[in-house]
This record gives sequence, C-alpha cells and structure tokens, in this order.
Amino acid sequence: MGKIRIGMVGGGEGAFIGAVHRTALAIDGRCELVCGALSSTADKAKRSGLAIGLADDRSYSDYRSMLTAEAALPEEIRMQAVAIVTPNHAHFDVAMAALDAGFHVFCEKPMVMDMTQAQALASKVRETGLVFGLAHTYAGYPLVHQARSLVAAGRLGAIRKIIVEYPQGWLARMEEGGDNKQADWRTDPARAGGGGAIGDIGTHAHQLAEMISGEAVTEVRAELTRFVDGRRLDDDAEVAFRLSGGGKGHLLATQIAIGEENGLRIRVHGEKASLRWLQEEPNSLWFQPIDQPAQLWRAAAPYLDDHVAALCRTPMGHPEGYLEAFATLYLLFADRVAGKAGNDKILFPDIDTGLRGMAFLEAVIASDHDGGIWRKINV
Amino acid sequence: MGKIRIGMVGGGEGAFIGAVHRTALAIDGRCELVCGALSSTADKAKRSGLAIGLADDRSYSDYRSMLTAEAALPEEIRMQAVAIVTPNHAHFDVAMAALDAGFHVFCEKPMVMDMTQAQALASKVRETGLVFGLAHTYAGYPLVHQARSLVAAGRLGAIRKIIVEYPQGWLARMEEGGDNKQADWRTDPARAGGGGAIGDIGTHAHQLAEMISGEAVTEVRAELTRFVDGRRLDDDAEVAFRLSGGGKGHLLATQIAIGEENGLRIRVHGEKASLRWLQEEPNSLWFQPIDQPAQLWRAAAPYLDDHVAALCRTPMGHPEGYLEAFATLYLLFADRVAGKAGNDKILFPDIDTGLRGMAFLEAVIASDHDGGIWRKINV
Amino acid sequence: MGKIRIGMVGGGEGAFIGAVHRTALAIDGRCELVCGALSSTADKAKRSGLAIGLADDRSYSDYRSMLTAEAALPEEIRMQAVAIVTPNHAHFDVAMAALDAGFHVFCEKPMVMDMTQAQALASKVRETGLVFGLAHTYAGYPLVHQARSLVAAGRLGAIRKIIVEYPQGWLARMEEGGDNKQADWRTDPARAGGGGAIGDIGTHAHQLAEMISGEAVTEVRAELTRFVDGRRLDDDAEVAFRLSGGGKGHLLATQIAIGEENGLRIRVHGEKASLRWLQEEPNSLWFQPIDQPAQLWRAAAPYLDDHVAALCRTPMGHPEGYLEAFATLYLLFADRVAGKAGNDKILFPDIDTGLRGMAFLEAVIASDHDGGIWRKINV
Amino acid sequence: MGKIRIGMVGGGEGAFIGAVHRTALAIDGRCELVCGALSSTADKAKRSGLAIGLADDRSYSDYRSMLTAEAALPEEIRMQAVAIVTPNHAHFDVAMAALDAGFHVFCEKPMVMDMTQAQALASKVRETGLVFGLAHTYAGYPLVHQARSLVAAGRLGAIRKIIVEYPQGWLARMEEGGDNKQADWRTDPARAGGGGAIGDIGTHAHQLAEMISGEAVTEVRAELTRFVDGRRLDDDAEVAFRLSGGGKGHLLATQIAIGEENGLRIRVHGEKASLRWLQEEPNSLWFQPIDQPAQLWRAAAPYLDDHVAALCRTPMGHPEGYLEAFATLYLLFADRVAGKAGNDKILFPDIDTGLRGMAFLEAVIASDHDGGIWRKINV
Repeated sequence: MGKIRIGMVGGGEGAFIGAVHRTALAIDGRCELVCGALSSTADKAKRSGLAIGLADDRSYSDYRSMLTAEAALPEEIRMQAVAIVTPNHAHFDVAMAALDAGFHVFCEKPMVMDMTQAQALASKVRETGLVFGLAHTYAGYPLVHQARSLVAAGRLGAIRKIIVEYPQGWLARMEEGGDNKQADWRTDPARAGGGGAIGDIGTHAHQLAEMISGEAVTEVRAELTRFVDGRRLDDDAEVAFRLSGGGKGHLLATQIAIGEENGLRIRVHGEKASLRWLQEEPNSLWFQPIDQPAQLWRAAAPYLDDHVAALCRTPMGHPEGYLEAFATLYLLFADRVAGKAGNDKILFPDIDTGLRGMAFLEAVIASDHDGGIWRKINV
Repeated sequence: MGKIRIGMVGGGEGAFIGAVHRTALAIDGRCELVCGALSSTADKAKRSGLAIGLADDRSYSDYRSMLTAEAALPEEIRMQAVAIVTPNHAHFDVAMAALDAGFHVFCEKPMVMDMTQAQALASKVRETGLVFGLAHTYAGYPLVHQARSLVAAGRLGAIRKIIVEYPQGWLARMEEGGDNKQADWRTDPARAGGGGAIGDIGTHAHQLAEMISGEAVTEVRAELTRFVDGRRLDDDAEVAFRLSGGGKGHLLATQIAIGEENGLRIRVHGEKASLRWLQEEPNSLWFQPIDQPAQLWRAAAPYLDDHVAALCRTPMGHPEGYLEAFATLYLLFADRVAGKAGNDKILFPDIDTGLRGMAFLEAVIASDHDGGIWRKINV
Repeated sequence: MGKIRIGMVGGGEGAFIGAVHRTALAIDGRCELVCGALSSTADKAKRSGLAIGLADDRSYSDYRSMLTAEAALPEEIRMQAVAIVTPNHAHFDVAMAALDAGFHVFCEKPMVMDMTQAQALASKVRETGLVFGLAHTYAGYPLVHQARSLVAAGRLGAIRKIIVEYPQGWLARMEEGGDNKQADWRTDPARAGGGGAIGDIGTHAHQLAEMISGEAVTEVRAELTRFVDGRRLDDDAEVAFRLSGGGKGHLLATQIAIGEENGLRIRVHGEKASLRWLQEEPNSLWFQPIDQPAQLWRAAAPYLDDHVAALCRTPMGHPEGYLEAFATLYLLFADRVAGKAGNDKILFPDIDTGLRGMAFLEAVIASDHDGGIWRKINV
Repeated sequence: MGKIRIGMVGGGEGAFIGAVHRTALAIDGRCELVCGALSSTADKAKRSGLAIGLADDRSYSDYRSMLTAEAALPEEIRMQAVAIVTPNHAHFDVAMAALDAGFHVFCEKPMVMDMTQAQALASKVRETGLVFGLAHTYAGYPLVHQARSLVAAGRLGAIRKIIVEYPQGWLARMEEGGDNKQADWRTDPARAGGGGAIGDIGTHAHQLAEMISGEAVTEVRAELTRFVDGRRLDDDAEVAFRLSGGGKGHLLATQIAIGEENGLRIRVHGEKASLRWLQEEPNSLWFQPIDQPAQLWRAAAPYLDDHVAALCRTPMGHPEGYLEAFATLYLLFADRVAGKAGNDKILFPDIDTGLRGMAFLEAVIASDHDGGIWRKINV
C-alpha cells in the first residue's frame, strides 16, 4: 500500500502548527509530504520548503502554482491531498481551489471565516465528492473515542449536563505586536476571524462536547471578554448551551488563566453515570457509575472496545500524546483518501464538523454582541 | 480559661449537621455543650438530648423554654451561646429570640429565608452587640486563609477571573420523600427557602470567592435548573458574576453530578499569578506565578504566614479535614465570645457574611426568575 | 452511657502527641480526660495539667501519685484508664504500675524498649485481664479496614508482595540538640530505644502490612543508616521481609527524604488484584483487579462493607483525617473498656500487636548489626 | 541536510519494539528506514520487509546479506547505520558484524548477553570509531535531562539516597508458551540472557539512576524472585546499591504488580532538596527544596535549561510521550552520525552505558546466586 502524497500550504518559518502536521503525517508511515507552498510570501515559501527538505522543484512559491504544477504531474507522483495550515483567513480560498483542482483537503480549524464561506465550502465538498478532513486534534485521542462509546452504549443514561473547559494561560500578557507570530495572528481579526479564544480553542471544546455526547449544541448564550488591554479579540469566553437531547452545558475557553497550559477537559453527567477526560492526561478516562467506585480506564487496556484499542500504538503505560493524536487524524484521513471503508464507529472530523463549528462560532459571537441573549444554531 | 458553654437548637435524631457541630466544638476544648432543644417536636427533643448525654434538666423540649430556663441559671453555669442547627426556615426566630435573651449565636447557613429577615437580624446583632457566627465551614481551612493572604499581599496582582464550583452527586436521583431526611428538607421550599443547590451549597461557593478575593460579588446572572423530575427546588445553578474590583467570575453549584462528592473548588486568576484550592484535598494549595513552576503549598508548612500556621493542629502530612475546619470556626467564635481580640487577619464569617450571602441568593433567584438578566447586589 | 474517664501520663509542655490524644479522645464524646501527670518533672507536670484545664487536685506531680490518689476515689469518679504518651523509655514502668493498680492502659508505640519488657507486659495484661490498646494511629482509618476486608475476602488471591514505605523529611538536618524536643528524644537511644526511624515510624509500617495482609512478618533482613552526621540512631531503614503466607515484602522507613511529609503508603500485590493506600490521602483506596479498570474506593461510600462504613463520621467528600483516625482508636478502646462486644471484624491494635512490633524491631536491629543477615521472628 | 539512512535487523511480524523504532526514527525526519532483515527466518524476513513498505531489493532475508549488499551500494544510497531490534541473544553478532562492515549501530538493550561480549563489543566500537547508540528510551525524555541538570548544578546538594522503581503487571500470570511472543522470549534464558525483569526493565532503572545522579552504582546486593510458577527467569528483583558519591539506593523491578503498567519512577534525595519523576507522567518533574513549597516543573516551560527546552517539540500542555522520547534518541544518534558536535550537556546512552548496564546485571545475578551478598561493580 503506497503512502498518500500530501502537499502543504502554510507552515513555513516561524509557524507552529505546520511542523506538527509534518511530524504527525510521518508517524504512521501512511502519508508522505511531497511538496508545499509554505508561505504567502514567495521567497519565504521557497526557502521554507527547502529548509524542511522538499525537492527544489516541488517547493512552490505560492499555492496556486502548486495546484497547477502538481496537477500536471503523472498520477503516481503528484500529490493527492492538500494540508492547509495557514492562519484562518486563508483557509477558504486554498480549500476551494484545491477541491476545484481535484485534490482532497485536510484543513486546520476553525474551518473558515464565516458561515457563508462554510456553506460554500460544504457545497463544494459534496459536489466534488473529495475527502475533507478538519484538524480537530483531540478527536484523535483513543480515550475520547472510548468516552463516545460509553455514551453511545447507554452507560451514562440520558445526558443531563456537560461541562467543557479549555483554559490556557499563554495570552495572560500582551504577547502580540512583538516576536510572537502565533500571538500575532491569533489575536488579529483580519487573520483569525471574529473569534479569539472562542475560535482558537473554544471550537475544540465545542467539537469535543458534540463528539462525545453524540448530540448537537442547539442554542447558546455567550459572553466574550478581552481581559488584556489593547487586545483586539476575546481572550476569554463563557458559553451556556443547550443539547439536542434536552441536556444543558457550559463551555469555558480562556487564554488568560496563568498556570493553565492546554487544559482542555470535559465532564459529562448522565442519569446513571458520569465521565471525565483531560487532554493533559490523555491516556486516562474516568468513568463514574452511580453508587459504585469510580473507574480509571487507561489507553491500550484489554477492556477497551476493539475499535478504540485499534487506535493505540503502544502498550499500557507507554504514554502517547498530542502528536500521536494528530497522527491518528492523518491515519483516518489516509484511509478515506485510499478509499478504505473506515470503521464507522471511528468518528472523523469532516466538513459537517466544520459547518457545525462555524455555526457555533457565529452564534456565540452574535449572542455576545447582543448582550448575552440566547441564539439558536441551525445547521 | 473556662470553656464557652453552648446550647444547641436542632440536631436531634436523624439530623446530620448537629453531630458535626457537637464534634467540632469538642475538638479544641474551648467550647462545651451544656444544654439543648434538639427537635421541634417536644418528646423527640427531650429524647435526643438524653441520647447525646445532656443532663436531664438541661435537655429541653423546645428552644423558648431553653432560653428562659438558662437565663435563670447562675451566670457561671448558664449557657453563653446558642448553636442553631435546624433547617433554614427556623433560623430566624431562634436567632432573634436568643439575641433578645442575651445569648451569642452561632448559626447554620444559609442564614435566614430572605433579605427582610436578614436585615432584621443584622439590626438585632448590631443593637445587642452580641457575637454572631455563621457556619461557613470551608472558611475554617488554613489554606483558604493562606489563599486570602496571597491575594491580599498582591501576589496575584489584580484579579481578572474567579471560577468557583461546588459539584455534588447525592441528589442525582429522587431521594426526597423517603427516608432521607437531609434530602427531604433541603428540597422543600418551606424549610429550605427559595434556593435548592444554590442555597445549600452555592452560598458556600459565593462566600469562598468573596473571602479569598477580598472583593464583593456585585452583580449576577443566573440559571437554575431542576434536573430530577418532581424536585421542587433547583438541583443545579450556573451563575455569572462581577467582582467589585472589576473582575468577572463564574459559579457552578450542582447536586446531580454523579461521582462528585463534595467538590467545592476555586480558581483565582490574577494578572501575575493564579491559585487553586479544592476542599476534598484541603491541605494543598496551588500557587502558580507566571513564568515559574507551579508551587504546592501545604498545611503546617514552615513557609506559611504565621496567622495561618496558627490554625494548623497537626504537623505536615498528618491530614486535617472537615471536622477540624469546623472546629476552627468554633475556636474563632469562642475567642470572640471570650472577648479576646482575635487576630484581625483571621477572617470569621459573621452577620455581614450572612447578609451578603442572602443578598446573593435573592439576586440569583430573581435573575433566574426573570430569564437570566443581570441583577445588581446592593448590601 | 457514661464517658470513659482517662488519666494521662506525659504530654505536657512542648510535647506533640499528648495534645493529639486529648483532641482524639474528645472527638466522639466517649472518653473524658479527668486527670493527668503530664511531665516527669513535678512542677512542670502540675503546671501543664492546669494549663490544659485539669482540676487542681487531679493534676498530679507524678504518675505514681496519680495511680494512688485515683484508686482512692469513688468508683464513679476515678479514672478508668491511663493514656501513656511519654517518650518510649517510660512506657514500661507506667504501664506495669497502671495495670497493677487496676487501670486499663492506652499506650503510645513503640510499646516498650525491648522484648524482655514486652513479654513481661504481655504477661501482666493477660494476668489482669485489663484492656490494653496501642496507638497505631493508622489502624484507625476506615479504608485501612476496607483494605483488610478485601484481602480477607480473597479479592486479591494469595499475596505475593507487599511494598510498604514510610518516608518523612523532617530529620534531613541535625534538628536534635536544640529547641526541637521531638527531634531530641526520638534520636536519643536512652529515651527512644535501639531504633530511630525504624522504631518511630517503621513499626507503623510493619503494623500496617500485617494488619492489611492478615499475615505475619516472619523473617527480616535489614540495613539501618544514619545519614545525618552526629545522629545517634538510624534515620533510614531498608527491610526485606517474608510473610507467613509465603509472600515477600519490602519496607522503607526514612526521615531524610526532603519533601516527604508523613508519607506512609502500602501496595499489596496478589495473584488476582492489587491495592494501594496512602496516609496523606486517607479517604481513597485503590483496588486494581487484573484485566479491569482500577477502582477508586472512597470513604463513606455506599459500597463499603458495613463495619467499615460504621467507622466513617462524615459523608463522602467531607475529608476525615489524622485526628479522626486517632479518635477511632479511642472509640474502639472505650468499647472494650465498657465491655461492649466490639465488632470482631474491626481490628484493634492491642498487646499482641505490641509484642509483634517489638519482635520485629529487635530482629531488624539485630539483622543490621550482623551485617544484613536474615533473622527469624518468633513471637 | 540529508536523512540518515537506517537498516533494521529484527522487528518483523509479531514484534513490538521494531514498530516503535520505525515510528521513532520517522518523527523528526532526520532518519529514514531504507532496508532491513526483519527476521531470523528468511521468508518471514522478506515478507515482513515488504509489509512495512521496504523496496523489494532491500528487504533482505538475513542480516549478513544486508551488510554485504548495502556495503556494495553507492555511498549516497547505502545505509549508514544498523538498528538492532532483535531479542537480546542476537545483539552481539549483529552489532559486531555491522561495525566490522563499517556501519554505525543503534542497539536495543540490554546490550548483549554477558560482560565478555560487552567488552569485546566495546573494544570494537573504540577500534572502529563508529557511533554506537543504546535504546535507553527513558533517557529521551526532556525532564530526565532537567533532573540531571538540577543535580549537576548542585541544587540537591550531595545525594544521600536514590529510590528507583520499575513496576509492571503484565507478567502476573503465565503468559509465555502461548501466543504472546513478547512474553515468550523475554522469559527465555536462551534469548533474554540471565536476567528476566532485572534485564528487561531493571537495566532501565539502573541507567536512569546513574544518568540523573551523574554517579556510578558501585556495589549491589540483590534478590531475584520467580513469583509465577513455571517461569524460568526472575519476574521480580530487589536491589540495594551504593553510589560512587557515598550515597545509597534501592531498586525495584517487578513484572507481577497487577495494576502497574510501565511505572518507571525515581526519587533522588539530597542534602538540600529532592526530586521525583515518573515515566507515566513524563512531562512533569517535582523539585522539592527544603523548607519551601514543592515545585512542579513542566515540559516546554520557559524556566527549563536551554538544552532541555531544545528537546521539547510541542508547547506546554501538549503532551509528548514514549514515542517522542524514543525519537529523541534517534535524533541524537543522527547528530552523532552526521558528525555534528552534539550539545555536550545532552547525555546520550552509548557503549559505556551499555558496558555499565551489563556489569550491573552480572553483579545483580551473581549477588542473588550467592544468597544476597554485596558484589562490587568494576567497569
């Protein structure tokens, strides 16, 4: 079985997530980076490509040239999919062009800048029938799938309440406007879109809640805050929400919580049991049935569901982490590109996930704008 | 130094908190239970008093008899203070009568049923000059005082955000209406007042946030939920709030979170550092200064402030718990009754704490009633 | 039911454990301190007694006067039992005299200075038929009893290995010879006996291992170390041991482990499951059955055995600690003094426990002395 | 900079560690697997190579053919280093032959079967001047290097005591003799050598202790146990040891501890501070200075030493795990093969590490054989 050939857009000098994608796609040996247009600045794009070892003639100065040139290569050589790792504002154009040129797409989140773009992209994906994957990294952790599986099997009963939080502390000071390229674009409305913390990390929390519960967030009431003087987008978001099954939820996304690193965590409380998962200890899942001792489920354990165990690379106690979670997304993407029938129990963040995320994001921003009224989400 | 003589109202057969008070007041040998009227039912009151070892002639059939009879005893024998451990609806009458009869009062929380009662009681306390203590147990933990001290010393900088939660799981099913006397009255509006979870445990969370921050909660927006069918009061409360110093906060009080026991916990995020404390691990306090390793502060450690160290009974690693925290409240109460100048760094929950708690509770209930609008708190 | 009347020997000014006993015996209202001879120095004894509120005529200048005077009091007034909280070297004489005078005894550990004393004391206890209790505090924690119960029920299968550790850090420096009265006597062979760390805390670890396993430590090989220059007794002990059921074990007791507080902890590994318990988190017990998720058992939980649940004073999540564990020993002691048939599932550290502890201690010291050869324990 | 071209010996069907090596070498894009002889059975070797995507003409049927054929290829194509991932008994011959053929070697541990082989191999490495790396995975974790750095900087003072443990539970039953290929060879003296648990995991614990302390283990006293009936090698090892700096230590390696997964952990106690690290939570390091709060150092934190920070791939809170630690070893190996002057603060497990490990292993086995006498280690 050959490797899926990937071309990357974005991820050049100074970028963070591009290198993560490159490592992630290499881990399982199912994907191969064959070309790239790593910056929107032509010479930087070229230079960045060479620096990471791309062939000179496949390190392109811009993504349009890449799409054209690659399309002209023999089928067994040309790239098959585009990985989009630019700041948010560039996702849409690149994705549309890539799909138009017949390439599958694996895209960073939040997917695009607004619902108009999201719907146009969704139409394009459906029309082309190409594979579209969204980089919701945390959906790659095995125990998130086990959590989903426990809920789906009815082990929690009806879900009453979800508490999902994503606290970070790295923007507790004014970091933008200096050397910190990450802080710079993520707090810039022109490049990040209308959401700061809510877009950057809140969308992960939203995706996690929907994925584990198997329910839709149908309504939100939000308050966005800029705690740091001079910041142009929210660095803190509080969102009350409703679930399609009748439950309620609360979401916190903040980037000013000193001491917090990347603390995505979720608690799901049902009528019969609860569960808890924390990204920073991703190989542990707490399951708490009523009237019984809490149970600590662990990655690679013999009692996991088969389709979950299949996502574990190392034996119990040999911790897998963020890069492996990311690698799993590329693995699932590669399966789909290769036309393999994926295990349909394995949820994969796709264009619908992206649509739902954008609808959530727009509703949150609108609710906050209107003083915290409830906003329905229809998608 | 003689012991402070206490008379107890409530806390007879089937009660929970009465026994806690009796243990707590005994721990440090500064208080002594000398009499009681342990039930509102005369024969049960009598029987309960004898069962816990009260003298026959000081186990009263009702609190009014107790007040009268004790007042008639020689000064060196008669009780000096009344501990009120009844359900909420009885606090006001007993407290007013006790103060009128010249006795100090140590009262369970929430203090009374509404602000009208609260203000009348506050006037009475001021008028009589007697000591009034409120059983905010968690204010008795040494590391809560250390947390306050770190904030007061400016170690966190300006407070941006407080996240305070009090999750429990014991009311995840319909427990009331059967044998569970605790569930029964705590979910009954006539005895508990207008708040279920928000009154029972939310007021503790509110008190903790104000105590550690040294700021007032000035405004709230709340949503109260009854998750369990047939329940008459909220079993879940979400409250957004504002702090007098300009910060924001979020409070969760829930009793349907299976697997949670008594999980009162607080995170305070300032401009320079954060702190975290969790009631179930009360001898640990996390202090997280920006750019530095997180620090784990421990009870009885040599680096604690002197006034905090003075609250620790056992050496490091010999865990103190809930009963000791409670005992500390009685210790501080005894100091005040004995006229000892308390260490003014040691905060003691008093009538003002009670007033603030009732104002918070009323504002939360009103906000929820009005569909989640912001309500100011003026007290 | 009247309270058991206790007289205390030792525990005056500057002492640590005396105050712990006084608090512990007060907690459940089953015991009452009525008299004492709190120091071996007459005026200090008197002064200390008054300071803690003893009546003038029952604050004795020495323990012999106390025994004589109390014996002469009317039966319904005189003390019933003596609590011995002196340094180790004084235990034997006081205990023998108290038993001779017809008083029950509750004694600090290690019980006496050597096996000769231990056997004489054991004979005396048997001869008099009086109650003898030993202050193995950690035997008072409910979850230690639950651990015992799981082993006894065969849930672990045959025990293969026990790892029991008791690390502390408070003697990492030379603390003796200055103000630290605790450090002073505990490192002085004349007052502490032949064991430093091994006697002070190693005996607790030994008792815990035997109690939970229900097996005897039958053989030891030990190495004692004095890490701190100038110290006269071991501050670190490593002991390999054999169990009567065929299993093996390892015991560590150290007082030079900076950062450790009072870290008594045990792991028991059987053929079918393991368990873990840690004194600093006493309300949690890990049970780990093979091939299944680990289970976190919690104090006051509904799934505990009845006789264990009966030892819990507060609901789940309201932590009990060291003082409550100690109080439970006094409760069990009071039951026995009162002639109540104790629940025979509830293990109580008694004269046999003390004998076993002394035999262990002597064997460890002898093994170390002889270069680490295996020594059998016959008791 | 081109990738280092690796050929692999062992790691075919049913193997565990081969796949780990393949993932690890891919992660940073500095190495490339170009050929292999993946089994000692010719057709299985061939088949396994094709299954993982090796070119047909570079999937060899045995390692000797590989060495010969690769040596004949043009320099810019042929492999540069051999990764040896066979069971232990095959390491020596392959390594000697590879070095003789002019290839660098990266070898699994324990390095060889005995000291005679170890010394012959060491001579060969020195003679050829080629790079030799040893797969002590846990030396790849950044915080292990930070621990080393804290000790080297004197932050702990003189080391008094090291407690290093490596508990696992996967051999708590008879797993060998059935499908479990791992259990099979690791408990077979002919393939594993004279040590079971002590060789398989005890050598990791030994390496970790020496690496962090910067001291040599100079003497050991050991007891090896076979807890599972019918097992041919130890499944549990207890080792007392001495350090070259005068400190003492204790090592536990066990594979029958149900509930333990891969629990390598170390505590280092010095005169001024202690530190703790646990492989299952590899991104945390506890540093405990005397009289101060314990500090939690975290991977990728700004306060880490530069050479440690350089080993972190992802930001704080994005956990790296076992595969990344392994990848770091390949990265350091690639640096050395490429002739880059490595950062000399970065310790890399090499032939001397292997020699020391074998000497330790032999001494432990000899001590156990002789009834637990002390054995010196001279290497």
